[in-house]
Amino acid sequence: MNGAESLVQLAREAGVEVCFANPGTTELPLVNAFDSVAGVRAVLGVFEGVCTGAADGYGRMADRPALTLLHLGPGFANGIANLHNARRARSPVVNLIGDHATWHRAHDAPLSSDIVSLARPVSAWVETARASKDLAADFAEALAAASQPPGQVATLIVPADCQWEAAGPPARPQPIAAAPRVESARVEAVARRLRSSTAPALMLGARAPRRRGLHAAARIAAATGARLLCPTFPARLTRGAGLPHLERLPYFPEQAIESLAGVDTLVVAGTGPPVSFFGYPGVPSRLEAPESLVTLAEADEDAVAALEDLAEALTAPRRAPAPPDLPRPESPTGALSPATLGAALALRQPEGAIVVDEGATSGLPYFLAAQSAPPHAYLALTGGAIGQGLPCATGAAVACPDRKVIALQADGSALYTLQALWTQAREGLDVVTLLCANRAYRILQVELARAGVAEPGPAARALTDLSHPAIEWTAIARGLGVPAARVETAEALLAQLDAAFREPGPRFIEAVL
Amino acid sequence: MNGAESLVQLAREAGVEVCFANPGTTELPLVNAFDSVAGVRAVLGVFEGVCTGAADGYGRMADRPALTLLHLGPGFANGIANLHNARRARSPVVNLIGDHATWHRAHDAPLSSDIVSLARPVSAWVETARASKDLAADFAEALAAASQPPGQVATLIVPADCQWEAAGPPARPQPIAAAPRVESARVEAVARRLRSSTAPALMLGARAPRRRGLHAAARIAAATGARLLCPTFPARLTRGAGLPHLERLPYFPEQAIESLAGVDTLVVAGTGPPVSFFGYPGVPSRLEAPESLVTLAEADEDAVAALEDLAEALTAPRRAPAPPDLPRPESPTGALSPATLGAALALRQPEGAIVVDEGATSGLPYFLAAQSAPPHAYLALTGGAIGQGLPCATGAAVACPDRKVIALQADGSALYTLQALWTQAREGLDVVTLLCANRAYRILQVELARAGVAEPGPAARALTDLSHPAIEWTAIARGLGVPAARVETAEALLAQLDAAFREPGPRFIEAVL
Repeated sequence: MNGAESLVQLAREAGVEVCFANPGTTELPLVNAFDSVAGVRAVLGVFEGVCTGAADGYGRMADRPALTLLHLGPGFANGIANLHNARRARSPVVNLIGDHATWHRAHDAPLSSDIVSLARPVSAWVETARASKDLAADFAEALAAASQPPGQVATLIVPADCQWEAAGPPARPQPIAAAPRVESARVEAVARRLRSSTAPALMLGARAPRRRGLHAAARIAAATGARLLCPTFPARLTRGAGLPHLERLPYFPEQAIESLAGVDTLVVAGTGPPVSFFGYPGVPSRLEAPESLVTLAEADEDAVAALEDLAEALTAPRRAPAPPDLPRPESPTGALSPATLGAALALRQPEGAIVVDEGATSGLPYFLAAQSAPPHAYLALTGGAIGQGLPCATGAAVACPDRKVIALQADGSALYTLQALWTQAREGLDVVTLLCANRAYRILQVELARAGVAEPGPAARALTDLSHPAIEWTAIARGLGVPAARVETAEALLAQLDAAFREPGPRFIEAVL
Repeated sequence: MNGAESLVQLAREAGVEVCFANPGTTELPLVNAFDSVAGVRAVLGVFEGVCTGAADGYGRMADRPALTLLHLGPGFANGIANLHNARRARSPVVNLIGDHATWHRAHDAPLSSDIVSLARPVSAWVETARASKDLAADFAEALAAASQPPGQVATLIVPADCQWEAAGPPARPQPIAAAPRVESARVEAVARRLRSSTAPALMLGARAPRRRGLHAAARIAAATGARLLCPTFPARLTRGAGLPHLERLPYFPEQAIESLAGVDTLVVAGTGPPVSFFGYPGVPSRLEAPESLVTLAEADEDAVAALEDLAEALTAPRRAPAPPDLPRPESPTGALSPATLGAALALRQPEGAIVVDEGATSGLPYFLAAQSAPPHAYLALTGGAIGQGLPCATGAAVACPDRKVIALQADGSALYTLQALWTQAREGLDVVTLLCANRAYRILQVELARAGVAEPGPAARALTDLSHPAIEWTAIARGLGVPAARVETAEALLAQLDAAFREPGPRFIEAVL
């Protein structure tokens, strides 16, 4: 058994199911190890950002790490943007990066670079393997680091000779430390503060905005009158008819500040203070009212248990009253717009769907309409690194083969990682991509207007417009192996969604806005 | 005038012609400055690897820097792979990376990350602007660093407030230091060594393998009998009928070692010692015969002048005898293979073409055939970071609008940065892409065989095969706006090449191998 095989054996033993891989020569012993030690599924991404985004989506849905397998510094670099999103989502991910053999590194061969410097900004844990006999133990550490709740990105650099030379004695998976419980003194303090508050609110992050956390939050709301909020870009949100509603913090800081202006006590659980996505002249970075912030649980503490403890401390009712039934959207007709598109999707999405929203400026009306949809998971662009949607949907589909995955996808962002469609086709994944084709970087056009640029000049137009030439997305999707249709009316979109949801397998719908 | 405008004004003054851009909100003042201070052409890439690869191609052909404009850490990260190639090519490039406003950075907003750590591995120079009044001077430093011959990657991080706040007094472009001249003592020592050598060779890198350097090298060869070589992946090589021939060092180390085994004096000019691309068990990293290496000029010294000085020191003839006429390839017929494809392209490529070769395992027969083609420039994958070909061709076409650019492109590598085709379409660039569709990561299949894996298992097959589903490249190219044709015979390829070379503008030919 060589080092690579000892690593894969440990992965299998630890319950690792899948590796999203784009290997090269320096990773071939690991590639072969997936054959000689069967049990970890190797899924090819034909661009590294697909692999890392898929690992993020997998991690968000499975709550345990997938592996990535990437080729030295430049191959890894192609995966950084989606690891940035994974880091912000607190997704568990283990990156395996091949490197030159230890004795070859000094020679500065063409593919040599400082991989650690590249990896550190997106990794909570980075190590370089030194010897094949220790590789399984190194990997066990990486796995434990990634599994630290709610999840982290861990990166293990593996020189080729550490893969191909002989393994040492077998290593064992390390125990996974549970998220630390919030001490009762803090819970009591938050309860006291809430009792004296006249306008409280509660914002849920990390694993809190799922069923258990939502029910605890609803009890707290019933006891205190607190508004329930989530960050603008939640990693994973359970929502839909019958579930407690969370208000999503607005994207633009002026609106977020207005939304929080009257809140005298903002309790955060599983997330930090709300911060403006970008800095604007004359607008503060922090969004909550002064002195209103109270931390119940940090992202790496057990926010769900803390919410339940807080509900008890407040002697909240055992069950909050059911949220009001929201009306379903009317069946949309006529021209497509973010509003009619959002209504159509919210009307048709099946129960248990996983909706990956990288719809950008086209996504908000859908979010508002979908609170009345059957219960589903909602995954957002946590880190703002665009090109997340198609890969994340790919990984979510691998994690949850029994659920329909829907990628609500802006066209500008889709261009960054469109290669994910090929993996969806190859693996027969159950992903429906709904592409919002407004043929522009619309958010930049909005930002130009906000900055007072009434008439963008030719450069500003050239750098924000995607209509010359207009991209034929259906041709591209079919070229990558995914059946595709283009729609220009709400009626046609409804028909295509019905067709797509009726059958398993990848589908692509270009909605021209 | 704001900081951004002062930067663009200096760029224009310094003769910067083009900025390959994929901006976001934090770069909008620079976007507007391209309008308020006209004179620098803004070219949109819809993925950052397109921008950086285009800047590399532009730099190799123009010998002066293009700018890139990229969006914070994750946007920059998407451009790292092609900056790695640019670094290895010693291409002049200036990256401008927007960042959060200085006062917003402390708040760890979603898109915050350690940009310096990401930039350092690919940049010879990295700085972060601190104040709008100094931005033009900071940029002048970046430009001087990038222009240091033969070229470097320089990265300037520009917080948004340094762009939008008031400029300081105007800055001036800094003088560009010439490459240092190699001292005559070293030239004399090399001449003495060559005079006593019985089997000398000369390997040319950086700007040496172009007309002036080639002629000096040919004179040295005439005086000493030296073989003339170039690295496996030259940044830019001038070659073709009537020009001195360079042997290209083989890719696999066993073959390279054999090629250099009899050489008792290997003089390198503009490049370092030859090193194996990867490390293999039992194979040395260094390829030249022991004690044979002699450095005439480092990459950042004036290798061309050193070659001319060396020719003089050797009292070489003023003009070397003309190289022998090589036979033109026969017009190929029948099935396509790397050999017939290479012959077809070598036969048809027009005079003055710029050939960007990311043909990988399909490229070598073309290289051998093209020595007899009309004089042309040949650009290779210097850093081994795949996804270089289509962007590099894009930038070369921007630099040289009067020359036909040919991208000889492997299909697996093309998938990484296929978005370059859209920029070619938008800008009407004169690029013919010849896609070698073998539907595999063939090099990995070759490496598996070399490593003794006679029967790759299912994982190894899955991770090296691109045929399920087969990618319809013509659909993708058309979807991105480039006219496309698929060919399956040499005759059809010749006809498509003729059609493509007859007219300007982008064309895409998928050659099914």
